[in-house]
Amino acid sequence: MMRKQKPVKDSFVNMTELVLPNDTNTLNNLMGGRMMHLMDIAAAVAAQKHSNRIVVTASVDNVSFREGIKLGSVITLQAQVTRAFSSSMEVHIDVWAEDIPSGTKFKSNEAFFTFVAVDQSGRPIDVPEALPETPEEISLFDGALRRRQLRLLLAGRLKPEDATELKSLFAIG
Amino acid sequence: MMRKQKPVKDSFVNMTELVLPNDTNTLNNLMGGRMMHLMDIAAAVAAQKHSNRIVVTASVDNVSFREGIKLGSVITLQAQVTRAFSSSMEVHIDVWAEDIPSGTKFKSNEAFFTFVAVDQSGRPIDVPEALPETPEEISLFDGALRRRQLRLLLAGRLKPEDATELKSLFAIG
Amino acid sequence: MMRKQKPVKDSFVNMTELVLPNDTNTLNNLMGGRMMHLMDIAAAVAAQKHSNRIVVTASVDNVSFREGIKLGSVITLQAQVTRAFSSSMEVHIDVWAEDIPSGTKFKSNEAFFTFVAVDQSGRPIDVPEALPETPEEISLFDGALRRRQLRLLLAGRLKPEDATELKSLFAIG
Amino acid sequence: MMRKQKPVKDSFVNMTELVLPNDTNTLNNLMGGRMMHLMDIAAAVAAQKHSNRIVVTASVDNVSFREGIKLGSVITLQAQVTRAFSSSMEVHIDVWAEDIPSGTKFKSNEAFFTFVAVDQSGRPIDVPEALPETPEEISLFDGALRRRQLRLLLAGRLKPEDATELKSLFAIG
Amino acid sequence: MMRKQKPVKDSFVNMTELVLPNDTNTLNNLMGGRMMHLMDIAAAVAAQKHSNRIVVTASVDNVSFREGIKLGSVITLQAQVTRAFSSSMEVHIDVWAEDIPSGTKFKSNEAFFTFVAVDQSGRPIDVPEALPETPEEISLFDGALRRRQLRLLLAGRLKPEDATELKSLFAIG
Amino acid sequence: MMRKQKPVKDSFVNMTELVLPNDTNTLNNLMGGRMMHLMDIAAAVAAQKHSNRIVVTASVDNVSFREGIKLGSVITLQAQVTRAFSSSMEVHIDVWAEDIPSGTKFKSNEAFFTFVAVDQSGRPIDVPEALPETPEEISLFDGALRRRQLRLLLAGRLKPEDATELKSLFAIG
Repeated sequence: MMRKQKPVKDSFVNMTELVLPNDTNTLNNLMGGRMMHLMDIAAAVAAQKHSNRIVVTASVDNVSFREGIKLGSVITLQAQVTRAFSSSMEVHIDVWAEDIPSGTKFKSNEAFFTFVAVDQSGRPIDVPEALPETPEEISLFDGALRRRQLRLLLAGRLKPEDATELKSLFAIG
Repeated sequence: MMRKQKPVKDSFVNMTELVLPNDTNTLNNLMGGRMMHLMDIAAAVAAQKHSNRIVVTASVDNVSFREGIKLGSVITLQAQVTRAFSSSMEVHIDVWAEDIPSGTKFKSNEAFFTFVAVDQSGRPIDVPEALPETPEEISLFDGALRRRQLRLLLAGRLKPEDATELKSLFAIG
Repeated sequence: MMRKQKPVKDSFVNMTELVLPNDTNTLNNLMGGRMMHLMDIAAAVAAQKHSNRIVVTASVDNVSFREGIKLGSVITLQAQVTRAFSSSMEVHIDVWAEDIPSGTKFKSNEAFFTFVAVDQSGRPIDVPEALPETPEEISLFDGALRRRQLRLLLAGRLKPEDATELKSLFAIG
Repeated sequence: MMRKQKPVKDSFVNMTELVLPNDTNTLNNLMGGRMMHLMDIAAAVAAQKHSNRIVVTASVDNVSFREGIKLGSVITLQAQVTRAFSSSMEVHIDVWAEDIPSGTKFKSNEAFFTFVAVDQSGRPIDVPEALPETPEEISLFDGALRRRQLRLLLAGRLKPEDATELKSLFAIG
Repeated sequence: MMRKQKPVKDSFVNMTELVLPNDTNTLNNLMGGRMMHLMDIAAAVAAQKHSNRIVVTASVDNVSFREGIKLGSVITLQAQVTRAFSSSMEVHIDVWAEDIPSGTKFKSNEAFFTFVAVDQSGRPIDVPEALPETPEEISLFDGALRRRQLRLLLAGRLKPEDATELKSLFAIG
Repeated sequence: MMRKQKPVKDSFVNMTELVLPNDTNTLNNLMGGRMMHLMDIAAAVAAQKHSNRIVVTASVDNVSFREGIKLGSVITLQAQVTRAFSSSMEVHIDVWAEDIPSGTKFKSNEAFFTFVAVDQSGRPIDVPEALPETPEEISLFDGALRRRQLRLLLAGRLKPEDATELKSLFAIG
């Protein structure tokens, strides 16, 4: 039987947050841990929308932090499922930070989170296939296999010689 | 002039937290984003202790989440600097979760965070060298170069052919 | 000199939130006060985007609460400036609540907030005119005068006989 | 059978709060949304005391915000039921803000909230009649009908020509 | 020069709080630490009202916790200065817990907090004398010396033989 | 039948916390109530570790606060059971505060909390005996009886003439 298919854009989530005092360090900049907390919530909602299930965070790929984000800034997080694998979903997130009175806006983070859909007792359960439509969605869909191999490799659950998809990443013979 | 040296164990941080209702999802399990928030705080304190400076999160490597952690559990986070590079420090974190009444305890996460030490105006500033002493500390110190190359490669700031340290990871040629 | 004009749609804000345990009462439903807190943040960001200024809440019109919103639901708030008056802006907000695993979604609230743009010392400062474009935006723009008279009347700052715009509301004369 | 009667003063609630950093905007003033959150809690407790039931917020009338309230100020909220209608209760709230070290104190808000008493499954349930005693209580009791018509009218659930009580508000005919 | 005098009742504070999910342990009862947090805020406001100054907590006497307080309960804290000593003030607090739907109400705690009034740079500064008026206020005023000696004795800052006021406590010859 | 014995050091808990904006007063110092909240959590975890049970706070002995602790400081709380009495346990806590960039560190508090172990319905349940091993642990174990008498005396549940252990405290006869 074929799995149900669902366009990835149906999972799109846009989340806006204000940076409040308790989110900041002594330089009055947003703390990295608080940013990851927000990214996890936005990404979880995207995975919920794709699967219509309760979801739990399975992993987060490398996240890097660039410029500091000031107290009072507006943060915009945009999350969308890139690809689904039986019960797991990879979600891509882009984060922008905007200091409205000073008129500055910049892209502050980009990350991939993976979630697993579970039933009420917490057991993994299958999700629909994710259907990419735009060129950017297709490119993220295609890269998902490679990122998944890298995750398994880093977790010690895949042998380097079997990481065939990673070859392109390292441009190796 | 030689940089000051400081044993990595001087940065050791042990942090204990109780899982409270607002930290949990509808399955009564700790949310991944909240865990990353706690890991960021523990790791930041370790980096502060090594550098005696204000520190800001620069990046987080892959984090994977295994079993769910129940409401009311005790979480223990142990963080320690592994290696310092001019103004940045890599911090290793281990997390255990313990449900005391039921007597279960398991290692739930392991991660690497990178912090940059900054002065009061937020500019990067040099930190002491990190001196590993035990075999485990030396092994984490040695692996830090490789993980750093992987971070730069993933951020598009290093060409694959220059990632010499990564060869061991992929067991290539 | 003419005031600068700005399309109302430039102020559009979409904010997504998860209902967490601390947001709920003993029936596990979102508390009304927490919902108003979220609406205020979303509306303030819309007013900031229109004015590129710090904004402070001046008033909130009647808000009514219909069905209960369950713990774990996803709330979507959409806010947009409807009209600007020298230093104040009226913002319209629609709120939807969605219980993703059960597949229910309904419009839970609709409200008008008014904000004043202020400078760094908290003094009111002029904002651009708000330019409606779609039929719905024009209808909200037109109704803003009437709602403003009602606010002034309720605050005792307008005499009933001068509330000319309100006549349509009460279909009088 | 006659409904039980209960003096409105039995529902009186006095609530004191300190303005903490996370309650404030970048001008260090209390945010409007946080104030509404506090008002909702104080008013809900008054409605609980009148009904001895779980209560849910049904609506909030216009709230206007005057002067900014500084970080560290003491807020005093006083809430009391004004009138009960089968399962719903109108609650009146006065809010004062006091900056103790500078010796300033002013009335910052006044509002009417409506709550519905519900049973454990969330179904509306009858409440005692509210008995006003002082002249001020009687005046609030009498005005409650008019405010209720305005709420229904604004919610589109009452035709203007049937809003007989509102005539006094608009001093018409 | 005589110090200004101020009736103790001018410092009276009544604070009402709802027990929210994040305030509770896995038995759904209010946690002791959260209760002390609330007591400290109520008592600090009373000390601020007496002194018209910023105040900092100097000490808390024994606090004992009796019955558990359920999620959703209403807590009422009543704090009032008992006596002032140059820059410090002792504050007495009574706490009641009420589960409104079940109609239970009981006194849950009673405690004494001591605060020091400070200027903007944090240096102790004199406060008005506290004037007790009712028999209960006079009894609390009189006992304040004895409790102060006990605090100093327990802190190792008073020799047992000099604790003359404590004799009545221990009914010693 | 003999009760199970357990070394007190098995209950040792080390907890590290960062002072965040919402934890501070208008002097940017940690509020006393927040500190007591943290102490209660650390001590509760120690009592949980000794008893392998859910625990509830029974009492807190005098706590005194010395120097202010600045925003951004690192707080280290170390808690350990001193002695067990059927279902209750006394826990000793030391707190240090460290302002890392300025290199200052000082002991800020020391306190004794008492917890009762309870079963799932909240009824007291026996705990293992606590076995002190080092001279410091033995000294804390020995003093526990005296502190317990003082608690009972202050709570009016012990007559002064029966407080035999307290004699040493007051160096009487």
